[in-house]
Amino acid sequence: MSGNSFGVLFRVASFGESHGPALGAVLDGCPPGIELEPAIIQKELDRRRPAQSEVATSRAETDQVEILSGVFEGRTTGTPIALLIKNLDADPSAYENLRNVFRPGHADYTYLQKYGIRDHRGGGRASGRETAARVAAGAVAKQVLRGFGVSVRAATVQVGEIQAREFDENAMDDNPLRCPDRGAAEKMLELVLKAREEGDSLGGIVEVRAKGVPAGLGEPVFGKLDAELASALMGIGAVKGVEIGDGFLVAERRGTENLDPFINEGGRIHTRYNRAGGILGGISTGEDIILRVAVKPTSSIPREQESVDQAGRDTKIRIKGRHDPCICPRLVPVAEAMVALVLCDQILRHRGQCGTGLKKGFDK
Amino acid sequence: MSGNSFGVLFRVASFGESHGPALGAVLDGCPPGIELEPAIIQKELDRRRPAQSEVATSRAETDQVEILSGVFEGRTTGTPIALLIKNLDADPSAYENLRNVFRPGHADYTYLQKYGIRDHRGGGRASGRETAARVAAGAVAKQVLRGFGVSVRAATVQVGEIQAREFDENAMDDNPLRCPDRGAAEKMLELVLKAREEGDSLGGIVEVRAKGVPAGLGEPVFGKLDAELASALMGIGAVKGVEIGDGFLVAERRGTENLDPFINEGGRIHTRYNRAGGILGGISTGEDIILRVAVKPTSSIPREQESVDQAGRDTKIRIKGRHDPCICPRLVPVAEAMVALVLCDQILRHRGQCGTGLKKGFDK
Amino acid sequence: MSGNSFGVLFRVASFGESHGPALGAVLDGCPPGIELEPAIIQKELDRRRPAQSEVATSRAETDQVEILSGVFEGRTTGTPIALLIKNLDADPSAYENLRNVFRPGHADYTYLQKYGIRDHRGGGRASGRETAARVAAGAVAKQVLRGFGVSVRAATVQVGEIQAREFDENAMDDNPLRCPDRGAAEKMLELVLKAREEGDSLGGIVEVRAKGVPAGLGEPVFGKLDAELASALMGIGAVKGVEIGDGFLVAERRGTENLDPFINEGGRIHTRYNRAGGILGGISTGEDIILRVAVKPTSSIPREQESVDQAGRDTKIRIKGRHDPCICPRLVPVAEAMVALVLCDQILRHRGQCGTGLKKGFDK
Amino acid sequence: MSGNSFGVLFRVASFGESHGPALGAVLDGCPPGIELEPAIIQKELDRRRPAQSEVATSRAETDQVEILSGVFEGRTTGTPIALLIKNLDADPSAYENLRNVFRPGHADYTYLQKYGIRDHRGGGRASGRETAARVAAGAVAKQVLRGFGVSVRAATVQVGEIQAREFDENAMDDNPLRCPDRGAAEKMLELVLKAREEGDSLGGIVEVRAKGVPAGLGEPVFGKLDAELASALMGIGAVKGVEIGDGFLVAERRGTENLDPFINEGGRIHTRYNRAGGILGGISTGEDIILRVAVKPTSSIPREQESVDQAGRDTKIRIKGRHDPCICPRLVPVAEAMVALVLCDQILRHRGQCGTGLKKGFDK
Repeated sequence: MSGNSFGVLFRVASFGESHGPALGAVLDGCPPGIELEPAIIQKELDRRRPAQSEVATSRAETDQVEILSGVFEGRTTGTPIALLIKNLDADPSAYENLRNVFRPGHADYTYLQKYGIRDHRGGGRASGRETAARVAAGAVAKQVLRGFGVSVRAATVQVGEIQAREFDENAMDDNPLRCPDRGAAEKMLELVLKAREEGDSLGGIVEVRAKGVPAGLGEPVFGKLDAELASALMGIGAVKGVEIGDGFLVAERRGTENLDPFINEGGRIHTRYNRAGGILGGISTGEDIILRVAVKPTSSIPREQESVDQAGRDTKIRIKGRHDPCICPRLVPVAEAMVALVLCDQILRHRGQCGTGLKKGFDK
Repeated sequence: MSGNSFGVLFRVASFGESHGPALGAVLDGCPPGIELEPAIIQKELDRRRPAQSEVATSRAETDQVEILSGVFEGRTTGTPIALLIKNLDADPSAYENLRNVFRPGHADYTYLQKYGIRDHRGGGRASGRETAARVAAGAVAKQVLRGFGVSVRAATVQVGEIQAREFDENAMDDNPLRCPDRGAAEKMLELVLKAREEGDSLGGIVEVRAKGVPAGLGEPVFGKLDAELASALMGIGAVKGVEIGDGFLVAERRGTENLDPFINEGGRIHTRYNRAGGILGGISTGEDIILRVAVKPTSSIPREQESVDQAGRDTKIRIKGRHDPCICPRLVPVAEAMVALVLCDQILRHRGQCGTGLKKGFDK
Repeated sequence: MSGNSFGVLFRVASFGESHGPALGAVLDGCPPGIELEPAIIQKELDRRRPAQSEVATSRAETDQVEILSGVFEGRTTGTPIALLIKNLDADPSAYENLRNVFRPGHADYTYLQKYGIRDHRGGGRASGRETAARVAAGAVAKQVLRGFGVSVRAATVQVGEIQAREFDENAMDDNPLRCPDRGAAEKMLELVLKAREEGDSLGGIVEVRAKGVPAGLGEPVFGKLDAELASALMGIGAVKGVEIGDGFLVAERRGTENLDPFINEGGRIHTRYNRAGGILGGISTGEDIILRVAVKPTSSIPREQESVDQAGRDTKIRIKGRHDPCICPRLVPVAEAMVALVLCDQILRHRGQCGTGLKKGFDK
Repeated sequence: MSGNSFGVLFRVASFGESHGPALGAVLDGCPPGIELEPAIIQKELDRRRPAQSEVATSRAETDQVEILSGVFEGRTTGTPIALLIKNLDADPSAYENLRNVFRPGHADYTYLQKYGIRDHRGGGRASGRETAARVAAGAVAKQVLRGFGVSVRAATVQVGEIQAREFDENAMDDNPLRCPDRGAAEKMLELVLKAREEGDSLGGIVEVRAKGVPAGLGEPVFGKLDAELASALMGIGAVKGVEIGDGFLVAERRGTENLDPFINEGGRIHTRYNRAGGILGGISTGEDIILRVAVKPTSSIPREQESVDQAGRDTKIRIKGRHDPCICPRLVPVAEAMVALVLCDQILRHRGQCGTGLKKGFDK
């Protein structure tokens, strides 16, 4: 991972600005012979797309994906897959008043410090809109993972102080929060609508679970699976923390409270409680991988905010644009995509180094 | 980062097992002309070394580092720096009874699943001892960073439920917990000694702060500074969570509570509260970078534990070996090293792409 | 370099098939603030474009480039630059008869062996058309190099047995062969036209020269400048050999004949004869870098050829399509592009590791 | 490949100077379960070792390799393999007179320009002695390749104007030139001894052949197998040219003369003449891979040479040290090592991306 490039064997180069002509990604190193058509990617993009519900921004992008290469007669050929998503509802004029000021909580100041130049239109490259390319790339990764029996699902498990009490995969797509607990979902929605009404926004927690991951994925020291997953998730805008398994709870535990014996269930070895969240020593155990990320409340709220301009003068700004009062539900497909990219790259790396000797899932 | 290799420009390849002949690292891409001698590295290794206090394992390793290449007449030459640390107190016999069983909470099972073979002696490559190589490499990174005015310090800010209330750099090295709050340190020590007496262990939280980091470090999307730092820290054994700035607290905040305006103080732009922990949009703001990691209680406690053996049979094990009742103080220099490696690589990558136009610290 | 991805700091991900919807590249890591507009890239693409002269294929592609990202108000922003070239004159039907046969001298057989699937239309990804993306990416690299005072020019110095006797940069663009010797150019043209008439093709040699390269570019052992240039040039289709400086001639020389003393000319150190072609020990000397590549005669000639089909049956094929009787003139801009990509990446890598202490050319 | 680091999946980090304490390499990503012991590596090192014959330098290094990690009970574990070769006969004093002068044909000047500092002792990192680490790493790669049925052999096929007329693998190790033609070997030896007597040196050509390489290795565009092999070979000191198959001969050929039909021999597809040297479109055909490199005459000849010193003053130097009159025979094992490294990395990359569907050799 460096810059806008991801992966060792399953490599993704992403591009695009919020209000430029298009966004997209080039995927280099995808296994050949995988079924792929635009609809498979579109389905994931549609989950991320703006303007879908009362709790999301109203920017009207259809986010139609085009496959420009690497697919022949419905199957991947092993050559690079270029994915293109045109920006149709770009409206840079809404940002003209922000050309010379730094929005608090955004990357305006840091991009200018780094590059000495910045595309101020909607945050340019630092816009959440960039995640459309990640979701498109992640959809291909998911399709590869499917062949290995691996699936990835995320959900909003907390908004403000309201927490989900269960992780019901059937409930997730029922509600605009993508909450896996229908009861909690209702309270969350109420809270979010109230925040929006008040010109405010809310933070929350998104949980990601990967099922069917065979034991043995991940590499020692710098290529640990949990390390790469942490990077993948922390690299999503608005994420301020990542934890795996029991996460920050372990800080207050004793060793005797944190024990998690190996057990043999019907000839397959498990950890009794999966406290580790599916990874030990950086390598998958075969249990579900469970991660949680802390999501900050959207910084772009329709209030007057203090800031400074590029000349260093104090100023007040009011962000118009179109923004989500709680970013969690739209972060859900992005988190899934990032986890899928890591798993897909690691599965290929594992197969490259270690071949097909594993007990489960690698003999494709 | 992949496998045992780290970095884009400042590249580290680490090697070594707990009970093999030696550990070490090769650093490729270090800037030339940097003052370097073994003592500079040794100082950091001595902070990580076992058998230093009543709260650490009694394995007697002096961890003497040798520089095998890349330094000429006291300065780096720009060619690879090989660092070697011999294992002197290796005692594999202590582990013979663990040859065919999987220690809970350790990587025994996952390494075997991955590789089909494992070095069972003290966890082999998955041992905490491997971090000596990271600390040695990190010491070189710190030396490079020094020339850019950047310093990195970590400390134990929580053990069990006892939290440090201040971050006093002078206090850190006074106490065996490396706690930055002398009052809290005493209580922590008491707690740890009691746990050890009871054959138990304790989790905690380590905080890392980097000072003097110029605004502008980090890259968009996949190479974000916080993403790379999260990976670096999550990749330390026993770490189960990473957060930056206000971290998981933001999940319960409203946008209006999380505001952090830019202000101009004496001609330099700051964020008023540094809630973001020194990074916005993946790029450093120039404020202190502040990270915290959740550390699990040591899994190797001197209690009988349930497990299974390689044949899948239920078994009971008792781990002898020599272990730390709370790993936090020894994790402190490792966390510093990992953060230093990331910052050093990013500073060189920034200089490569963007040259020397920044306001502060890059014109070396 | 791996797969379709190039570079450490100046990274290029290329995509596209000969008869798919589009070709292009994503450039990640380009320095910010560089002037860039489509016309700068188009100029280079127009040099590679087919249907330009009597010695080139008649496929009618205009190769119009679109910049989709990474450029704002005429300058690069430091974020990825996506370049798109649509295929307009794709004509897959011409290749339908080749769906199940392997063209000799082409990649049909090897792609099928590797991937188990292939896009047979015009060679798919293995088509020379893919080089349009390289030329577009190389045009950006050239623009970056311009700011460092570096220029790259290539020319056809041999066709069949006819050799150029001078390297006159003014002559190169005068003739369809891109030969730097007007006298030789005429004879070459005659030879090529005769070969085309006879349904035959010709090999040749292309020479590349880079001027203004500061001393100090390149890295030891695996990252040597000549090694990376050799890879870049050998990776162009039809190239079967690469040499630098006096190249294969040195095999028959004695040490005393190959001497090349350092001399001081007006305060600047030179090698007297530049026998090494501008690189010693893998690092540039500051002299012109001079490389030559051997180019095979086009395999696609309008003759009946023997081959086998996918079922392993003997078959005869006749390649219709549209092909160049001598590929050298069209390889010229591709060779320049590849050399420019290497130099650009190396210049940034050098600046990253070593900063700006060099005597010449790096203080940008 | 960058700096002193090689490979995508089979990664090598090399280190060491000619007159420092030691040389070596860390191999990260080696498949687990491969038989490995020092003797396997030593055998290759002994072929490269100095002071073996009348045509090689008399520096008395035994080049004993130690394996520091990554091997357990005689098999690789999948973790990094560190290889160490101590310098025992280092004699920096012989180079004291060269501290401030630039030896023509060497990297003294370019290293100083790059890094602003240099280890002048025997060329430091730029010494041919560095290749010991490559040969050690290559020995491991060869051991991995053996399991895939792949072998790599090189030989001196030309010295001065004397060419080998056959490639007899049995003859190669019979003669100090490592020439595969016994008759030519005698004449070469005579020539080399005469050159040494006259205080002169000779260039030559080394040919490398890889047998048993399955069809399908290599990647499109930037990761072509021939491109990576060219890089690997051009990166060996003294190499000034690389060609594959018919190489530079193709420049003077017509398409009709260069035809090479696919044929079916007993159910396996071949190219009739293997003109391409085993690679088409950057991907292996399954035929022998055949490469040749042009080797310059050793620059260090015992004659007075003109040069300049670091102050830019004209000077005369006489290189004492201990040098080979013709470097070809010692380059033979280095060339094999480099080709083995590339093939090993590519075979793992292929297995990672494409799995085990190939017809031959990958189902390990």
